[in-house]
Amino acid sequence: MEESFVPFRGIKNDVEKRLKCYKQDWTGGFRAGFSILAPTTYIFFASAIPVISFGEQLDRETDGTLTAVQTLASTALCGIIHSIIGGQPLLILGVAEPTVIMYTFMFNFAKNRSDLGSKLFLAWTGWVCMWTALLLFLLAILGACSIINRFTRIAGELFGLLIAMLFMQEAIKGIVDEFRVPERENPKLIEYQPSWRFANGMFALVLSFGLLHTALRSRKARSWRYGSGCLRGFIADYGVPLMVLVWTAVSYIPARSVPKGIPRRLFSPNPWSPGAYENWTVIKDMLNVPLLYIIGAFIPATMIAVLYYFDHSVASQLAQQKEFNLRKPSSFHYDLLLLGLMVIICGLLGIPPANGVIPQSPMHTKSLATLKHQLLRNRLVETAHKCISNNASLGQVYGSMQEAYQQMQSPLIYQESSAQGLKELKESRIQMDAPVDENAFDIEKEIDDLLPVEVKEQRLSNLLQSTMVGGCVAAMPLLKRIPTSVLWGYFAFMAIESLPGNQFWERILLIFTAPSRRYKVLENYHATFVETVPFKTILVFTIFQTAYLLVCFGITWVPIAGVLFPVMIMLLVPVRQYVLPRFFKGAHLQDLDAAEYEEAPALSFNLASYLQYVAGERDE
Amino acid sequence: MEESFVPFRGIKNDVEKRLKCYKQDWTGGFRAGFSILAPTTYIFFASAIPVISFGEQLDRETDGTLTAVQTLASTALCGIIHSIIGGQPLLILGVAEPTVIMYTFMFNFAKNRSDLGSKLFLAWTGWVCMWTALLLFLLAILGACSIINRFTRIAGELFGLLIAMLFMQEAIKGIVDEFRVPERENPKLIEYQPSWRFANGMFALVLSFGLLHTALRSRKARSWRYGSGCLRGFIADYGVPLMVLVWTAVSYIPARSVPKGIPRRLFSPNPWSPGAYENWTVIKDMLNVPLLYIIGAFIPATMIAVLYYFDHSVASQLAQQKEFNLRKPSSFHYDLLLLGLMVIICGLLGIPPANGVIPQSPMHTKSLATLKHQLLRNRLVETAHKCISNNASLGQVYGSMQEAYQQMQSPLIYQESSAQGLKELKESRIQMDAPVDENAFDIEKEIDDLLPVEVKEQRLSNLLQSTMVGGCVAAMPLLKRIPTSVLWGYFAFMAIESLPGNQFWERILLIFTAPSRRYKVLENYHATFVETVPFKTILVFTIFQTAYLLVCFGITWVPIAGVLFPVMIMLLVPVRQYVLPRFFKGAHLQDLDAAEYEEAPALSFNLASYLQYVAGERDE
Repeated sequence: MEESFVPFRGIKNDVEKRLKCYKQDWTGGFRAGFSILAPTTYIFFASAIPVISFGEQLDRETDGTLTAVQTLASTALCGIIHSIIGGQPLLILGVAEPTVIMYTFMFNFAKNRSDLGSKLFLAWTGWVCMWTALLLFLLAILGACSIINRFTRIAGELFGLLIAMLFMQEAIKGIVDEFRVPERENPKLIEYQPSWRFANGMFALVLSFGLLHTALRSRKARSWRYGSGCLRGFIADYGVPLMVLVWTAVSYIPARSVPKGIPRRLFSPNPWSPGAYENWTVIKDMLNVPLLYIIGAFIPATMIAVLYYFDHSVASQLAQQKEFNLRKPSSFHYDLLLLGLMVIICGLLGIPPANGVIPQSPMHTKSLATLKHQLLRNRLVETAHKCISNNASLGQVYGSMQEAYQQMQSPLIYQESSAQGLKELKESRIQMDAPVDENAFDIEKEIDDLLPVEVKEQRLSNLLQSTMVGGCVAAMPLLKRIPTSVLWGYFAFMAIESLPGNQFWERILLIFTAPSRRYKVLENYHATFVETVPFKTILVFTIFQTAYLLVCFGITWVPIAGVLFPVMIMLLVPVRQYVLPRFFKGAHLQDLDAAEYEEAPALSFNLASYLQYVAGERDE
Repeated sequence: MEESFVPFRGIKNDVEKRLKCYKQDWTGGFRAGFSILAPTTYIFFASAIPVISFGEQLDRETDGTLTAVQTLASTALCGIIHSIIGGQPLLILGVAEPTVIMYTFMFNFAKNRSDLGSKLFLAWTGWVCMWTALLLFLLAILGACSIINRFTRIAGELFGLLIAMLFMQEAIKGIVDEFRVPERENPKLIEYQPSWRFANGMFALVLSFGLLHTALRSRKARSWRYGSGCLRGFIADYGVPLMVLVWTAVSYIPARSVPKGIPRRLFSPNPWSPGAYENWTVIKDMLNVPLLYIIGAFIPATMIAVLYYFDHSVASQLAQQKEFNLRKPSSFHYDLLLLGLMVIICGLLGIPPANGVIPQSPMHTKSLATLKHQLLRNRLVETAHKCISNNASLGQVYGSMQEAYQQMQSPLIYQESSAQGLKELKESRIQMDAPVDENAFDIEKEIDDLLPVEVKEQRLSNLLQSTMVGGCVAAMPLLKRIPTSVLWGYFAFMAIESLPGNQFWERILLIFTAPSRRYKVLENYHATFVETVPFKTILVFTIFQTAYLLVCFGITWVPIAGVLFPVMIMLLVPVRQYVLPRFFKGAHLQDLDAAEYEEAPALSFNLASYLQYVAGERDE
């Protein structure tokens, strides 16, 4: 993406490019059939559970003015809008923790003003949203997102790890709180007696660790040794939601021997309870807000705009990392414009706005990569089996696999097809003419090795998951059966799931790896830097990054200013551009943190030469 | 071992053979230095924890006549005697569950007799021990152990799995009981109120699963990627006792917010409390037992003798399985004679006798195999590094490794040295003359692949662990700090630890393995049967064995007769010899359950040809 600050140019570019693949965005999704449900439910849970939990937090902090019903509604509404007319459909929207903190701050400000009070609070936030939207429009039109490619790997990964830390912190805080009497609750209730509190806490430990452990295990089901492939696939795809169900069921086992409040469960009003309809009157109330407060709303609006600009763009960027080999264009400018529009809608409805969220957005892309891999793999395995049973030679097998692979590539104009690879196979040193012995030739493994990472880029999974989030509002009575401790386990799960693939995290692990086993890192990840950069440089670079991360984490603890921790991440741009090159060699920085703006044109991943390389390795 | 029923011949043979390596039994142990402490502490915990727990059980069942102090004393005394003058020093002795059940049965019988009562109970068991010893002497002298090699793999492994099931059952029962009011306790105490009982149960779940999980993890520390080799080795060696300490410490964290009885901890009298000295008067009391009861003592004595004969021999056999490639002779007959002697001593002291225990005995051998492997590996790695830094060729490296390996073999007359292997290396197809590139050549892995299983056979670890068990009597006030839930976790750990290497268990797993992944079984274990026996035959054989196992397990639930479940295992001898050959082909039975008495002379493991094979595979 070139940097250009000519007004509207970015938006125009984005719209033009995305329009060209709009139809394929839908047909591609429908063509995947029922298997699209796997990433959909996976992301639905990852999206809905934190939103419910943040809604509960908001409920407590705003004395019930805003509840989980509102956060769910906002997430669903914005999600549906974005998935249909948004630019980058990989981006997942949701009400996030910073929004909750900002709304809490604003509520505490409003409730103590006699001419505002908690009654006009939502109307006032409506004005805040107006100002925020205005600022977002300006940023979008002026092409502020152009500088997004100055956020190199170092910034994105640091932010990713910071979010993981915040999620983990939430999980730990949640479990600790299970041992305490909740605020605003009557401590005389039987379930808050010391003995039952302790029992509740211990039960929470069992439930949350149970969920965490089994959910992590189930994600790896595909490589299990036991059970049929079909069962393993099902567990890998739907294991996490399944485990939420299982552990909720487990929480009911001791129901007879414990009082009703143990274990603690989600608390949220039903959407049909009185008061839930207050939102429709917000527009009307907005005219009653005193002028001074309408103007003053600009102050929180700037903070929210900076936050959203950053969060939305970085979430989108992390969902489109290079490793995913995406083939459809990005759409930062247009998406920011659309976000402004959604902020207005949310403001008028009196619900907190949703923005692009981490780690859900990269999780979404990752799960779609798995889906695409499964689809390609099944097709190629089928083709290969058919050929082999016809006694074809290895050359013929690869030929027909090549053909099948080409057929599955959607014709796009933006990039030349990445499927050339298999063509040149015939020149490789593998003996191609002998007929293939099916027993000696592990087709599935062979295909797994061959297939590059590709992502099923479409809009359907995002639309479906947003609709399901909307369905949660109606399913509130069922959701309330989930124990809060299962949520904490799920938060920990999300934190841990977001780590693999984050090279910053891998470098931290590398530091603790025994020197003799460092080469093993190469086996798992494509971490070329292990070979090209001296260990000492990696060490210094990682320690610097870790220190920076801890400072950012510390800032989140500062009462209100903590919301602006993204500014710290933004500061990384000049640091990366002007300070780091003084301490590290350019080539090393290139390998540790490839910045697009200073990079030589990358070599495209060439399947054929990779295969030759692999074949050559075997010959040695 | 040939079958011979000539009186005294078996004992004479055993003594003659073992005497020849007696000196080496000690020097070998001392030469291992401090590293002998790793298997020692490992087995000490595996030995002491169940004995303490069985002691508690006995305490409850005998109204405090016998306690953990007595079971520990017996285990320590018999262990020390056996490790010094016993035949097979790999065998671990301990007071086992069947002994506890027999003593409970005898106590219930005695306490209701007016002319015996609980006062003369210990004196009467003294007479039972006399008779038992007499029967054991007869069995030893007449060579009853000769038939031990008719107990083939099928019997030994079924017994091993049965014991694992009993341990697991004990663990589950223990955890369930944590939710209940213990028998003979005042249910009005604060810690037995429903809320605290529930809290205690949940805490127990956390502690026991915590111990189980971390202990299992720590055993695999050597293959961790993180941490220095030294740290990883330490964790692998001492991780399990360490985890018992850690989780005991964890159990004290909520000490302030819970009543004193939570979590429940070991209950046992201090050895210096009054009543603990009653044991010394047992001999005197024995003369007061009415004649009728002295004669009647013969009836329980036969049951105990049958049980001990079987348990002791099978424990010894499992500790000397073929896979361990032991180089020192077995000593079944003499050990049974010695057991008789120890039964007399225990009877006179009024403590329950100890016999050979499963799974501790095979665990002992396994941990000594790990020790020997470490010792050999360190030496060979050192030698290889020295050679490589002198720019030696691969041939020279192997030559000097061969030499170092020979030096570490203790000169024994019983088997020719198994170290010939490396000699013929020069003829292998590996290119031997090029100097070795240290970076490309993973010495440690190479050596791991090369080394056959060998066991550090010596007496020191057994003597030390018995002495440490004795030390437990003095350390009672410390031991009482261990929560019972940690014990249950430890029982589950022992059950799971005893599974790998049990081919019966591996066959059960194989049934549930996806057909396409069955070949992976071959990668881990030397399970040749997967290749030579049709899957259907493996299936039928395993289902038969599983059904038999379940019948045995069912019998253990029958009140008193349950003690005689070993008779069911003995029944397997005729079943294996006469019934199974009718349903299975001889060759298949051979592969699934090699019986020594019908086996062709085995091919000795040839390191050179193995290496040639490996090298050949690489060339392909």
